[in-house]
Amino acid sequence: MSRQIYLDNAATTPLIPEVIDAITEFMKEDFGNPSSTHAFGRKTKNTIENCRRSVANHFGAKPSEIIFTSGATEANNIIIGHCIKNLGVKRIITCEMEHKAVLDTVKNMAKAHNITVDYIDVCQKGNAQLTHLEELLNQTEKGKTLVSLMMVNNEVGNILDGKATAKICNQHNALFHSDTVQFVAHDHVNFREWGIDFATCSAHKFHGPKGIGFLYAAKEATIAPLLHGGSQERGFRPGTENTIGIVGLSKALDVAMSNLEKDVAHMKQLKHYFIEQLNTYFSNQYKVNGDVNKGLCTILSIGFSREIANELLLFSLDLKGIAASGGSACNSGSNQGSHVLRAIPVDDKPFIPVRFSFSKLNTKEEIDYCIGVLQELLKKPE
Amino acid sequence: MSRQIYLDNAATTPLIPEVIDAITEFMKEDFGNPSSTHAFGRKTKNTIENCRRSVANHFGAKPSEIIFTSGATEANNIIIGHCIKNLGVKRIITCEMEHKAVLDTVKNMAKAHNITVDYIDVCQKGNAQLTHLEELLNQTEKGKTLVSLMMVNNEVGNILDGKATAKICNQHNALFHSDTVQFVAHDHVNFREWGIDFATCSAHKFHGPKGIGFLYAAKEATIAPLLHGGSQERGFRPGTENTIGIVGLSKALDVAMSNLEKDVAHMKQLKHYFIEQLNTYFSNQYKVNGDVNKGLCTILSIGFSREIANELLLFSLDLKGIAASGGSACNSGSNQGSHVLRAIPVDDKPFIPVRFSFSKLNTKEEIDYCIGVLQELLKKPE
Repeated sequence: MSRQIYLDNAATTPLIPEVIDAITEFMKEDFGNPSSTHAFGRKTKNTIENCRRSVANHFGAKPSEIIFTSGATEANNIIIGHCIKNLGVKRIITCEMEHKAVLDTVKNMAKAHNITVDYIDVCQKGNAQLTHLEELLNQTEKGKTLVSLMMVNNEVGNILDGKATAKICNQHNALFHSDTVQFVAHDHVNFREWGIDFATCSAHKFHGPKGIGFLYAAKEATIAPLLHGGSQERGFRPGTENTIGIVGLSKALDVAMSNLEKDVAHMKQLKHYFIEQLNTYFSNQYKVNGDVNKGLCTILSIGFSREIANELLLFSLDLKGIAASGGSACNSGSNQGSHVLRAIPVDDKPFIPVRFSFSKLNTKEEIDYCIGVLQELLKKPE
Repeated sequence: MSRQIYLDNAATTPLIPEVIDAITEFMKEDFGNPSSTHAFGRKTKNTIENCRRSVANHFGAKPSEIIFTSGATEANNIIIGHCIKNLGVKRIITCEMEHKAVLDTVKNMAKAHNITVDYIDVCQKGNAQLTHLEELLNQTEKGKTLVSLMMVNNEVGNILDGKATAKICNQHNALFHSDTVQFVAHDHVNFREWGIDFATCSAHKFHGPKGIGFLYAAKEATIAPLLHGGSQERGFRPGTENTIGIVGLSKALDVAMSNLEKDVAHMKQLKHYFIEQLNTYFSNQYKVNGDVNKGLCTILSIGFSREIANELLLFSLDLKGIAASGGSACNSGSNQGSHVLRAIPVDDKPFIPVRFSFSKLNTKEEIDYCIGVLQELLKKPE
């Protein structure tokens, strides 16, 4: 069994040749420390600032509003800490379906700084309820509020109405942070026009390298740095820059944005076709987790009925060369409970969850292969 | 003027072909998320764990004692925070000559957590005084103590007697952390045998990539993570791993350690030759900052007399294609005061500081060229 099919693109994506080439070329040409003011340093500094400008342009942001970090986890930690330490936030409204990088950070910082945390209601389709958000924001006695809601859920793919959410936050004088990790490079977003205060991204979700991401902070906010000891990133993120990563991130984003419509159309087709095939072969024996009509093209979370599937399904798929996951990468390959699926209030009998997630590199033929393997693996109901 | 000579290797070093090749090959072959448990993830996880084992082996450490970080700045921040939050440290003894990544972190955390900070005396040659360390450690009423002293000073190159320092700390039941950024890959160190509790490193100081480093924490200590939201690095450093960086770091370290004696001999020769030439052409018009007899082969910090040099010297060197610095990269290329040089209690008339720092890639011929340029730039004393 030598064939390998990668359908776990929400966990991470393959590097594309354009990014590999950009990094390789950069490694051969450029090694200066961006903080050095001699020619070697200036050259690298120039490269980084060009990357920053390019990244900012894709989101209607100013270069000074983009701060490179080691990834979205660090970026989320910086922003949530900043809001509490610098901006007087006394309450955070978030959702049980957030990524742990937000959820755990909120829980830890709330405990350390005596912050109230409210969780927004989720409907049966897994959508955060904006009417509930408004209700919560009307409780003005709870003090300055940060709303942290992800733009696309990483497990079920549901898309938040980011503009509407930002508008509600702005109307209630609350800050709005969005983990946009799964969203950017798969759709257009103008942080400024939408009214988003803080956003976070990770390059490896759009065919860039791991260990590099950025945060957007509107209005050139003075960020409370998480680290101390250097003036890099205007002092907001000390430590010598991951120059290779920045070059790779910028290139990956450029490629993604310049082919966005075509790639998205392709992935939509794949997802649509996958569902069609599931209907053909496993009708009534599966459900889509989350809101199939409001889901991003990259993510398809399926629950297979226990009549035809068991906990070994992901393991069996892996043996057949198909990479999928049970949820986020943390519990990929296992069927341990997902906090996201638990947060969706459905009263179905237990299903076996499998997240298939697509990139522009996947093909219809791979879906056919995957459906074929599923037919082999899943028992016919008696 | 097209010639460019790089003599700022204490700020950062060029990537070597072995590292570029290792990274390029890895990028083409391997992209999984190490947290994914399917075949793609396991492959990458395996690569990372092999790197960790290899890194640990170079320092007599267990793999579980090595935690990859985005660099030494983050590593220093994690360790100092951990000692205060988890290990009951009430006092920190450090030195005014430390890198800002330690000094600023200590200052910030001391303020936030009401920690006493004592600074160890420095002699005229820039060496931290271990007799004073003992005196300070005898003040046992100040509570559980962390000693943070760098193994090699990044501006003047002075080497700490790491074994003796660790012994004193151990005898006084104090924890010992050493920023070993400039030291590792230029000499052998066995963290365990020496009795070091915590050490920090950055790959880009030994021809590896920027944005990746590691910390050593003895006895598989439970680190208080700085970031929240993931179980990577056993939960001590959440966030998807910088896989490219880890591969590059490991390869750079392997190459450095396998050629260590030869490379060090070469750099010693360069430094010795540089000083010889300075004596020949600028005798009595310069001094060596720090302890020339106790300095690492990579770093030569010179103070040129104001009779022959002025504040534009670094700028002029840069125009002639020679990259050197005024101190750490933060103030490289400028002559703004160095906190390190200020910390050395000398009462000389002001000198113009220039740090030349070498790597194995530099040549005697480059030193000749540099000396030639210095002869052009420096005024003959009247």
